[in-house]
Amino acid sequence: MNPLLNLLEHGQSYWLDNLTRPMIESGELRRRVEQEGLRGVTSNPSTFQKAIAESAAYRESIAQRVAESTADIDPARIGEALMVADIQAACEVLRPVHEQSEGWDGYVSLEVSPHLAYHAEASVEEARRLWHAVDRPNVMIKIPGTIPGLAAIEQLLFEGINVNITLLFSVPRYEAVAEAYLRALERRAQEGRPLAPIASVASFFLSRIDVLVDELLANRFLPGPGGDSEPRRLLGKAAIANAKLAYQSFKRIIASQRFKALEAKGAKAQRLLWASTGTKNPEYRDVMYVEPLIGPYTVNTMPEATIRAFAEHGTVEDTLEQDLEEARWVMDRLAALGIDFDQVAAQLESEGVRKFIQPYDHLLEFLADQCRRLRQQRDLEPLKALSRKLRRQIIAMTTEAGSGHPTSSLSAADIVAALLFRVMRWDPRDPKARNVDSFILSKGHAAPILWAALHEAGAMDEDPLSLRRLGSPYEGHPTPTCPWIKVATGSLGQGLAAANGLALANRLDGIPAKVYCLLGDGECSEGAVWEAAQFASLNRLSGLVAIVDVNGLEQSEPAPYRHDTGVLARRFAAFGWKTFEVDGHDLTALLEAFHQAGQDGPAAVLARTVKGKGVSFLEGAPGWHGRALNREEAERALAELGDATVRLAVPPQRVGPYQPQTPPPPPVLEADYALGAQVATRQAFGKALAQLGRTMPQLVVLDGDVKNSTYTEWFAKAFPERFFQGYIAEQNLAGVALGLAVSGKLPVVATFAAFLSRAYDFIRMAGHSHPPGLVFCGSHAGVSIGEDGPSQMGLEDIALFRALLASTVLYPCDGVSALRLTEAALTTPGIVYLRTTRAATPVIYGPNERFPVGGSKLLRTSARDRFTVVAAGVTVHEALAAHQRLAAQGVAIRVVDAYSVRPLDQDTLMRAARETAALVVVEDHFAAGGLGDAVARAVSGTVPVHQLAVTRQPRSGTPGELLELEGISRQAIERTILALSAEPDPG
Amino acid sequence: MNPLLNLLEHGQSYWLDNLTRPMIESGELRRRVEQEGLRGVTSNPSTFQKAIAESAAYRESIAQRVAESTADIDPARIGEALMVADIQAACEVLRPVHEQSEGWDGYVSLEVSPHLAYHAEASVEEARRLWHAVDRPNVMIKIPGTIPGLAAIEQLLFEGINVNITLLFSVPRYEAVAEAYLRALERRAQEGRPLAPIASVASFFLSRIDVLVDELLANRFLPGPGGDSEPRRLLGKAAIANAKLAYQSFKRIIASQRFKALEAKGAKAQRLLWASTGTKNPEYRDVMYVEPLIGPYTVNTMPEATIRAFAEHGTVEDTLEQDLEEARWVMDRLAALGIDFDQVAAQLESEGVRKFIQPYDHLLEFLADQCRRLRQQRDLEPLKALSRKLRRQIIAMTTEAGSGHPTSSLSAADIVAALLFRVMRWDPRDPKARNVDSFILSKGHAAPILWAALHEAGAMDEDPLSLRRLGSPYEGHPTPTCPWIKVATGSLGQGLAAANGLALANRLDGIPAKVYCLLGDGECSEGAVWEAAQFASLNRLSGLVAIVDVNGLEQSEPAPYRHDTGVLARRFAAFGWKTFEVDGHDLTALLEAFHQAGQDGPAAVLARTVKGKGVSFLEGAPGWHGRALNREEAERALAELGDATVRLAVPPQRVGPYQPQTPPPPPVLEADYALGAQVATRQAFGKALAQLGRTMPQLVVLDGDVKNSTYTEWFAKAFPERFFQGYIAEQNLAGVALGLAVSGKLPVVATFAAFLSRAYDFIRMAGHSHPPGLVFCGSHAGVSIGEDGPSQMGLEDIALFRALLASTVLYPCDGVSALRLTEAALTTPGIVYLRTTRAATPVIYGPNERFPVGGSKLLRTSARDRFTVVAAGVTVHEALAAHQRLAAQGVAIRVVDAYSVRPLDQDTLMRAARETAALVVVEDHFAAGGLGDAVARAVSGTVPVHQLAVTRQPRSGTPGELLELEGISRQAIERTILALSAEPDPG
Repeated sequence: MNPLLNLLEHGQSYWLDNLTRPMIESGELRRRVEQEGLRGVTSNPSTFQKAIAESAAYRESIAQRVAESTADIDPARIGEALMVADIQAACEVLRPVHEQSEGWDGYVSLEVSPHLAYHAEASVEEARRLWHAVDRPNVMIKIPGTIPGLAAIEQLLFEGINVNITLLFSVPRYEAVAEAYLRALERRAQEGRPLAPIASVASFFLSRIDVLVDELLANRFLPGPGGDSEPRRLLGKAAIANAKLAYQSFKRIIASQRFKALEAKGAKAQRLLWASTGTKNPEYRDVMYVEPLIGPYTVNTMPEATIRAFAEHGTVEDTLEQDLEEARWVMDRLAALGIDFDQVAAQLESEGVRKFIQPYDHLLEFLADQCRRLRQQRDLEPLKALSRKLRRQIIAMTTEAGSGHPTSSLSAADIVAALLFRVMRWDPRDPKARNVDSFILSKGHAAPILWAALHEAGAMDEDPLSLRRLGSPYEGHPTPTCPWIKVATGSLGQGLAAANGLALANRLDGIPAKVYCLLGDGECSEGAVWEAAQFASLNRLSGLVAIVDVNGLEQSEPAPYRHDTGVLARRFAAFGWKTFEVDGHDLTALLEAFHQAGQDGPAAVLARTVKGKGVSFLEGAPGWHGRALNREEAERALAELGDATVRLAVPPQRVGPYQPQTPPPPPVLEADYALGAQVATRQAFGKALAQLGRTMPQLVVLDGDVKNSTYTEWFAKAFPERFFQGYIAEQNLAGVALGLAVSGKLPVVATFAAFLSRAYDFIRMAGHSHPPGLVFCGSHAGVSIGEDGPSQMGLEDIALFRALLASTVLYPCDGVSALRLTEAALTTPGIVYLRTTRAATPVIYGPNERFPVGGSKLLRTSARDRFTVVAAGVTVHEALAAHQRLAAQGVAIRVVDAYSVRPLDQDTLMRAARETAALVVVEDHFAAGGLGDAVARAVSGTVPVHQLAVTRQPRSGTPGELLELEGISRQAIERTILALSAEPDPG
Repeated sequence: MNPLLNLLEHGQSYWLDNLTRPMIESGELRRRVEQEGLRGVTSNPSTFQKAIAESAAYRESIAQRVAESTADIDPARIGEALMVADIQAACEVLRPVHEQSEGWDGYVSLEVSPHLAYHAEASVEEARRLWHAVDRPNVMIKIPGTIPGLAAIEQLLFEGINVNITLLFSVPRYEAVAEAYLRALERRAQEGRPLAPIASVASFFLSRIDVLVDELLANRFLPGPGGDSEPRRLLGKAAIANAKLAYQSFKRIIASQRFKALEAKGAKAQRLLWASTGTKNPEYRDVMYVEPLIGPYTVNTMPEATIRAFAEHGTVEDTLEQDLEEARWVMDRLAALGIDFDQVAAQLESEGVRKFIQPYDHLLEFLADQCRRLRQQRDLEPLKALSRKLRRQIIAMTTEAGSGHPTSSLSAADIVAALLFRVMRWDPRDPKARNVDSFILSKGHAAPILWAALHEAGAMDEDPLSLRRLGSPYEGHPTPTCPWIKVATGSLGQGLAAANGLALANRLDGIPAKVYCLLGDGECSEGAVWEAAQFASLNRLSGLVAIVDVNGLEQSEPAPYRHDTGVLARRFAAFGWKTFEVDGHDLTALLEAFHQAGQDGPAAVLARTVKGKGVSFLEGAPGWHGRALNREEAERALAELGDATVRLAVPPQRVGPYQPQTPPPPPVLEADYALGAQVATRQAFGKALAQLGRTMPQLVVLDGDVKNSTYTEWFAKAFPERFFQGYIAEQNLAGVALGLAVSGKLPVVATFAAFLSRAYDFIRMAGHSHPPGLVFCGSHAGVSIGEDGPSQMGLEDIALFRALLASTVLYPCDGVSALRLTEAALTTPGIVYLRTTRAATPVIYGPNERFPVGGSKLLRTSARDRFTVVAAGVTVHEALAAHQRLAAQGVAIRVVDAYSVRPLDQDTLMRAARETAALVVVEDHFAAGGLGDAVARAVSGTVPVHQLAVTRQPRSGTPGELLELEGISRQAIERTILALSAEPDPG
């Protein structure tokens, strides 16, 4: 006879530790109940996770629920519904057992969320909800027997809800649970509620105890055969001993007067349930947690393997009260060996909760994933139609414009459709919103697809057919003329750096939004992409997703790696990114990749696409890069694409709350430089920056690993969270700064003036992006840096920043002016360039001197001024010295400090032109494009402007030697003025 | 009795198919000869390769030879010496056999190089050399029995050299060999030379035949058990059948009258030798190629395993003439099955030669490697001392200078020492040599180590203690002031692009030299490094080796990945490079890595180093980046480093021959543009370039994937080998161009003017490198490009190129001037910028018009000129139109085409200033730094200069709309002139 059927005669029910839908639907469960004596079932998050994730039986139910749902579906609710359905079905199967046993048996257990294990009230609420959802008398709600759990257990039992108390490992805790049961019954009795319907089991765990205790014992083995053998003798004995002692407690309780009184009113005993009775250690007997624990009022919940083993070779005897002496000895010896059983129980309880949380969370993730995929599947056809519609628009727009890049737009159409209409959380009504996902079109020539999508989403009203017309917001490449464009693109390889800036700004402002940046494969040849890639991974910009439209064709020939996304994947991976390679026209694959990529970035989606996708004669065809279709070709293309009348709404979404803050204007700093003190302007800048950081929360500083030279290290120390190390990668530095600037931050990029030239294309493009405020500080200007030589000298920097359409160029000459001009730079709109000097120079201005942008300082003047020397920065001091030398020779000169190189103080210079015979501009800069040009323009048509500038190949040498070499020293000024004085007056 | 000893009684000698030094030295060979009946030995490249590479027995000999050698050691000579020594020793062991057999037996065979298998004369020479080197009567020289081999064989035998003819597979070829033998003997007889001393064997191969024939048979199996069984029956039968038939030929030959006559004069028979007699197919009997082939006048050369097998269970019988009918049947059936035995033999001969070439080459490689390692080992201590000496110099130099980067130099000291003193082939006397390995110090701040090494190598005389002093060639960062510096470095991340250029130039000129580029880890954050890395691998620049000095510390903080060379290795690998990670202070590891890296690049050596290496208080210490030690610190450092008085000579070396060619000046092109025709200047440039390519072999063109826009595609088509696709990576483009320019090429870099700004730091640094000629062409200048919008418009380009210390800026306005200015650009020294326009403009110049640099064109002038309009490029046409409109209104203006923006035509402008009331400059460029500034400077102190330039945010629109928007249109000029006319005369 099957020993399983024999157990009941000895007062023990055996339950099954597992429940799956196939087991119910196939009749297997019923067979076991009817033929194999099964009298109950328990479930837990782990068994459900396995069942739902690993069998196909639930897919249809899930699909149905997704199909029926209108709004967003909560995967937890779907999971619960699946479980409740299974529990109900099992309850039906076990109902005859329940009825025949008069409520003693035939239970199915359903566990509350393991996240609630330490939350009494929430457990009560969830248990009530599940109890009512299942709505069967023979369901038991499983509650962990933690300390908070005890209160929940008492309350639920009091309310008449059957409870299976789980995760019990120690006798004292079991006794506390029994106490809660008694109290609940007593409270019911007091209120006159019936006690008979209440059922409860206390689940006492077995094998996990031995696993842990055996480990602790193993730590105590002495090496060698002669060592103490006691720890070895105790192996595999703790769990059973512990359970036997628990059963003795049970017996004391049901024998107590207190329980007898309740029993008299119909109360049932709270049975002990042996749980975790599968043998873990393969050296142990496979039924070791069944055979010694057979006795009345018990349940053994067995895993499948144990049931099979017991059916095959289990022995049934009344064993539960045998070997009690040994049990006590075991527990004593363990204690004597220093194994604290309370600690063991506590550890196992923690681990037990965690063991359920993990599968529970995995189940939710699995369900969320399933829901997403199903929803995607359901919504795929409209999205496909939308892509087609956007493609039609691309053709129409570019043909109407007679130019543009239709094929590069067509390759990106599915990517853009998926992002803007499905993936991104944004608000088509509000281009200024910060707490939304962002999109940067780094491959700016694909602007038509972006314009088409924005218009389709209702974000833009203007007719896309105005593409490329003067006045249209739809320019040839994205510019902020369209309010949705934060940074102008079109010079390739720049978008990702700006995206870094947006992502950093999001992090600074606590906005958990994503930044999507679409690149072309061609632009990945730009080193700036890899500078940006390194920055993103070093700064762990997890919200950043780069998508590369790998269409394999560039403007004039195939891309170097054609459609081999593997090359780019290996590169992004080598730069610390997660990578995904997908078919860029498979919307399902794209949506899946975006979902995965968005989990934890930075992540790159390498999308294999076809240039010209959707139009047969454009697909993969060379010679179409910057070319629009003519009318006839467009007709054919539209005919091929077919009609698409779908309209997909983009619901306005926000990512978290966000309140923009407008900081008050900063107070004027105190200048504490003594006249004549030697201070480098770069130091005064660094000091001012660190001071302004206190009152300007929007101020952020970016360094190209020269913070100890530019003195931004003082800001870094004071405000590390607003200081970003860009390492030696100036292009990315400028791009990140622009991204920050268009996101409400005030970035200061500081490096050697010479190295800002590395980022000039980015600075040029920043000009077209019109950032509210963006400051570049170039230190180590001119030959006055000395010994390091020409590579480190900023000699073209003024020309570079003057050449922009709009910019401010400031050039302090001492500590006070450096401080004031730093203040001015940080409060001047647009792009500001601040030029600082390496060497210390004497302070010549008092602390209250003001330095308005567009002004200058008349440092030396008299009625007898014959010539005017216009200087700035380091040459101011040369001019002052020359003034002194010349004065000694009776030649009076006017000295102007042109600290505001752009805008220039036209009035002062024109007055000088009227009042003196010539202007001599002295600048530590190459001759063209700098102060000399600016002054000559300012006073054109008046007196001659002579220029002293860097006109010989700069070398290593001392600053003084180099100023003299280049003819911009005090001596050179003196010589020039004396030569001019000697000339016959042209008047 | 041992069957081996029995063979001789049946007329067969057995030889051993292997010879190793241990076998000789241990007495094993002697034992076999004396006790086991061994009567000869053969060797071949394969057996020697195994012996030498896999046993330790030769190491001492090799080491001794390397130690004794003074000059470069040829590994082939060492290998030959090792073989000859073994052969001689074996000859001594076998001499008794030789003597006892009266010259019939006791031979040792030595094979000529398998590379000579198809070269008769070279075989004869090598065989003679080996014969005399071994100088033993019982040596045989092995010559393959190829068709060319036959002649060699006859000649050698004629000369009295014993020959073992190897690689015989067919009866006809064997007969040809026998014929050669007979002829040689006959010729000797004719000359009266003795015949008795001549011995020869014909080595007929066995098992290889079966391997191939069995394969061919297997191709003929029919599937299923009922198929034709004949192909199966023939398996493993071909070789033996073939050999038996060969023996029948032998018998015929020795029975011939012809041989009898020779025999009478003392000639010996040329015996048949069975070779390749080890069984390959494990299903066959292991002595299958011995037992059936026993008979008189034969040799069986057996491998060890076959000897052992035969000794154990071989049966000796006269078998060679048994089963002859079957042999003939086998050969017939094979033929009937379509297995052509001549083809089989031919294939096996080819494969046989290849099978010896491979081990022969491997042996040479192994020996070369051994020599190299031994030489390295021998020379390691002096090199270590040299590194120490360089380190001392670094400390001394920087302390004397009071600045510099000692710690970055110290980390690179071992790398530089290994390269300059061991690895590189260069000539310290000749900095201008092209056919030498090159070195570029990309981490320019480590200049002191380079200066110290150059001085130490005798390449520079000046005292290194002049470091950083004005006038010293040892500048703070490398510049061409030192004649060894080809490109100035110090702006990080630029060296590798220049190295690409050098490597490309080497390839173009057929110079197989290496280019070594030393980078810092910090500069690998620069995207330009990765642009260069991609270019190198796409262009398979196998001579390029990058070394990264991974010292883990940057200027202001640790490098992002510290000493993790794996990050850089993964990146370089992802960019298509071979990579090597080594300890950068382990000279042996460095030399090995450089050797491996130099084999086939591009290869990157990632060297883990310690910043400040060698000086305890500097090693890995922060805060020392740009700081020299004071005197006291320097004393401590030098004491730690210890004395180093070693002197290592760098022998002058060249890499292959190279004759520089000075091309003649190009003829003046013919301008075939009709007046009034519409031609875009970019097209005229492209056409001129393609034409000039014909007569300027030094002209190379680099494209940033816009060749169909800049029209360099015409040059690309005509001269693909001188056209380089740089893809969208302008920094690398400029860097490669500079590298080419300093290597005798004349590079033209063409892309959109806007995108040259991306490379500005490279252009700036190119200025400091003073290239002989380097042309940048920027197309798509100004707002006149129209619809593409501002990102594509070159609006700062003139300012950028004017800002350089020295440059030429040319700006054509029509097809003729574009052609002439392209000619001028290509013949003007230094950096030249040529600005072209997108749109077609009318041709206004005749074909013979000249356009000297520094000139201008007075297009409209009259005695009544009231104002002068200075225009260039597209605005010239606006000015001409305005002239016409104004003329109609009675206002005469002068129109100047300032095609040479730099140098400017000062004379013409000054004359205009004298003769007209004001100058109006009209330019399609932002307002600052361009033509307006230049003109204002040129005429300062005279009349007012008014400027019309791009002053509003450029947009998409038609070219005409945009010219008007920006106020640089013909209408705007007209309005300006009319307004000026209306002003009261200031005079």
